[in-house]
Amino acid sequence: MRRLLLSNDDGVHAPGLRALHDFLCDHARLRVVAPDRDKSGASNSLTLTRPLALVVLDSGFYSVDGTPADCVYLGVNGVWEEKPDLVISGINHGGNLGDDVLYSGTVAAAMEGRNLGMPAIAMSLVGERYFETAGRVAASLVGAAESLSLPPRSLLNVNVPDVPWSEIRGFRVTRLGYRGPAERPMKVLDPRGRERYWIATVGENADDGPDTDFAAVEAGYVSITPLQTDLTQHTALDDVQGWLDALA
Amino acid sequence: MRRLLLSNDDGVHAPGLRALHDFLCDHARLRVVAPDRDKSGASNSLTLTRPLALVVLDSGFYSVDGTPADCVYLGVNGVWEEKPDLVISGINHGGNLGDDVLYSGTVAAAMEGRNLGMPAIAMSLVGERYFETAGRVAASLVGAAESLSLPPRSLLNVNVPDVPWSEIRGFRVTRLGYRGPAERPMKVLDPRGRERYWIATVGENADDGPDTDFAAVEAGYVSITPLQTDLTQHTALDDVQGWLDALA
Amino acid sequence: MRRLLLSNDDGVHAPGLRALHDFLCDHARLRVVAPDRDKSGASNSLTLTRPLALVVLDSGFYSVDGTPADCVYLGVNGVWEEKPDLVISGINHGGNLGDDVLYSGTVAAAMEGRNLGMPAIAMSLVGERYFETAGRVAASLVGAAESLSLPPRSLLNVNVPDVPWSEIRGFRVTRLGYRGPAERPMKVLDPRGRERYWIATVGENADDGPDTDFAAVEAGYVSITPLQTDLTQHTALDDVQGWLDALA
Amino acid sequence: MRRLLLSNDDGVHAPGLRALHDFLCDHARLRVVAPDRDKSGASNSLTLTRPLALVVLDSGFYSVDGTPADCVYLGVNGVWEEKPDLVISGINHGGNLGDDVLYSGTVAAAMEGRNLGMPAIAMSLVGERYFETAGRVAASLVGAAESLSLPPRSLLNVNVPDVPWSEIRGFRVTRLGYRGPAERPMKVLDPRGRERYWIATVGENADDGPDTDFAAVEAGYVSITPLQTDLTQHTALDDVQGWLDALA
Repeated sequence: MRRLLLSNDDGVHAPGLRALHDFLCDHARLRVVAPDRDKSGASNSLTLTRPLALVVLDSGFYSVDGTPADCVYLGVNGVWEEKPDLVISGINHGGNLGDDVLYSGTVAAAMEGRNLGMPAIAMSLVGERYFETAGRVAASLVGAAESLSLPPRSLLNVNVPDVPWSEIRGFRVTRLGYRGPAERPMKVLDPRGRERYWIATVGENADDGPDTDFAAVEAGYVSITPLQTDLTQHTALDDVQGWLDALA
Repeated sequence: MRRLLLSNDDGVHAPGLRALHDFLCDHARLRVVAPDRDKSGASNSLTLTRPLALVVLDSGFYSVDGTPADCVYLGVNGVWEEKPDLVISGINHGGNLGDDVLYSGTVAAAMEGRNLGMPAIAMSLVGERYFETAGRVAASLVGAAESLSLPPRSLLNVNVPDVPWSEIRGFRVTRLGYRGPAERPMKVLDPRGRERYWIATVGENADDGPDTDFAAVEAGYVSITPLQTDLTQHTALDDVQGWLDALA
Repeated sequence: MRRLLLSNDDGVHAPGLRALHDFLCDHARLRVVAPDRDKSGASNSLTLTRPLALVVLDSGFYSVDGTPADCVYLGVNGVWEEKPDLVISGINHGGNLGDDVLYSGTVAAAMEGRNLGMPAIAMSLVGERYFETAGRVAASLVGAAESLSLPPRSLLNVNVPDVPWSEIRGFRVTRLGYRGPAERPMKVLDPRGRERYWIATVGENADDGPDTDFAAVEAGYVSITPLQTDLTQHTALDDVQGWLDALA
Repeated sequence: MRRLLLSNDDGVHAPGLRALHDFLCDHARLRVVAPDRDKSGASNSLTLTRPLALVVLDSGFYSVDGTPADCVYLGVNGVWEEKPDLVISGINHGGNLGDDVLYSGTVAAAMEGRNLGMPAIAMSLVGERYFETAGRVAASLVGAAESLSLPPRSLLNVNVPDVPWSEIRGFRVTRLGYRGPAERPMKVLDPRGRERYWIATVGENADDGPDTDFAAVEAGYVSITPLQTDLTQHTALDDVQGWLDALA
């Protein structure tokens, strides 16, 4: 039976993680290692300045006082002799669409798994109601993951519309869309009257063309985007070389 | 005179940020907004759960109780009427090579600037001694940045060998190399005898071929890598579609 | 039926808090507001630099991303119209004896209740096994608390031996003992070889005379110490005045 | 020459700490160990869950990524062979009057020194302008401290009016006053419209009688209050015993 490592960024007590566990526990041997509190927006951050505590809860889930990437690092690398066959993170409470993936702890958890050599899937529900829909999607993808071949250092980012399973119109392979620049932060006054700044809602969708993840979810499809973790902008190498030559 | 926003991830009191300021202050109008403490490894994380305090220090630098990406967000978007013409982060104490860029707060600060619409440069010194070498590199790049044309949503990641300026052999355009998977965490016992796990040193270089950033720095060159912030693995879209079709 | 506010410092998921709830839920109307993670050693600290999130869990317990004192402040003062009749914190995992009370979040939670005008009790189990013994003690004290008259700004600090209920020898009113100065911190090397310091075990008991809390627990008694929150050293006022007069 | 350990809770870069240093550096050998960021309201909390980094800055001050009590613990106990003769914390930006002392990191730093066996003074300026006034007070108290005899486990809490030195009317020995219960927290909406609670201003003075610290400062005097760290409410021991007897 295959071994799966589950993590998330909403924390070890989040309903989305529980749902993921419950839909997969008959299909694989599960190990759950997740942050002890909500770490949404943690991105790929790793905790380097202090050691981490790994605590087993009554549920059998492991809790870590760190980030999603910390959890996957410890879940793969830390304690157990056997490595997982697949890393799956989520089910995130809310979508990870477009440039959300740069900030998402859910995607980062999957990315950490990928960097450690495992295939990896990030699961997000674009809402907070129909976790069972996303759970079913997860189960079907996990069942088929063995037959998937991806380039090295890539992974799948999956977003599921927040509707009943019966209303899902199918699966679509997509590219990431792009939100516009974020809005100005919200100004708040603290109780002593000092100005503080609260980072606010994301920008409007600037690119949600028909082949994007935004469009797929909007149309009722599960969106599946292959992501890369090599950030080199290969198509710009020549331009930069030309610019450098002109400098010299 | 151009307006530059400076930030970093080592914190507002770090010598590398001071050096960057001192080498650029004659070339541009500078605004410095940086984290109040060391946020190395913060990646792209944004602080969404609480408001941020923006405090001006005696040095004229602004300090934020948040992440590098928070600082750039506030520096661009928060308080001032005029937007900067360029965002530059660093000088990082230590290199940001290969897949370091996924975790680096220095790169994230530049990336945040890029997402907000500005050209952006991340500057790192592969060591902690010759900040003046990196400062000179920064000054020459900033001087020439107006003539650089990059695709949308891309930025420059610059790594400078930690040697005197006279020993720099030149500039090289590079792709990111790749470190191997990280090693196991270090086990430590806390004073009460409980096991804790400290995330350890990065892996050995798994890909440091001649066109990589690793190789350029090793050979004494300043490495310049164009980075993208669109994580779509475009070359894998067809494969994933084929796999999905087989599922159905 | 009386209204009790329960809190603790080990976090909202701690077994000691659950035990306290279960032993009291038939005797009073309970509201539970506790930190979202372990805040042992938080002392009286209040969170002033950011707003707090108060989230209700499936258990009906409220979770706060703050300190024990924050929890009691919000539980008394924040949200509900009706104030509690009594604040009770614990059951702490481990004793709060002697000068532990200066650092204890459990005692601080009770102290915050007292400062807000309620009678308050801090409950600690000197161990981590027999929470039911401490639960029974809590139930009997809560039942009798109406007949207790304490000076303003004082509260009860209760420590229960970690033995079965049948082995408890009785109750003793005690004064605080005193531990000796703490030992040197433990030196650890981080994974990059840098020295770090971990605050270590507490000192040996320097004052555990027969009327102290240390002695009572050691002898198998429940220790009950009335605590004050007025830190003025009244007996030293004349000496300091004499010293000041000599200065002038 | 005597050895003084200086700390504070406003952080190692705070002007009040610098002022304290500058007014004392001719009178004693100084070692400064202070938190790397603002830790106001930290109370006595000690960091037990992770090791601490102790970093020397260009100023010669030591910075710790922890609480005021952590700093004093390390400053006394951690690294240096020679123990200080006196611990002095401050100069706090703002007063520590009445029950403020329960929450104050400034007082906690002094208290930690006292618990480790040194005489200790907490210095606060009731405002943020005339640090030199508080610096002069500190220098005169430090000069005379050798002739002061205090009971074990007690320390001095000093509050200085925020006026020029020439307007100080003298010194007064005081007891702590008492603020009334804190007001309700301020409700704020986060950018996503969720309610959050910000702990607000302290209560009105409920006890500021003529012998209190509140009254002394209000009248233009430096207030000096001896504090105890034994929280036993000795005067209540008999009452609690009577209550217990009635229970049985």
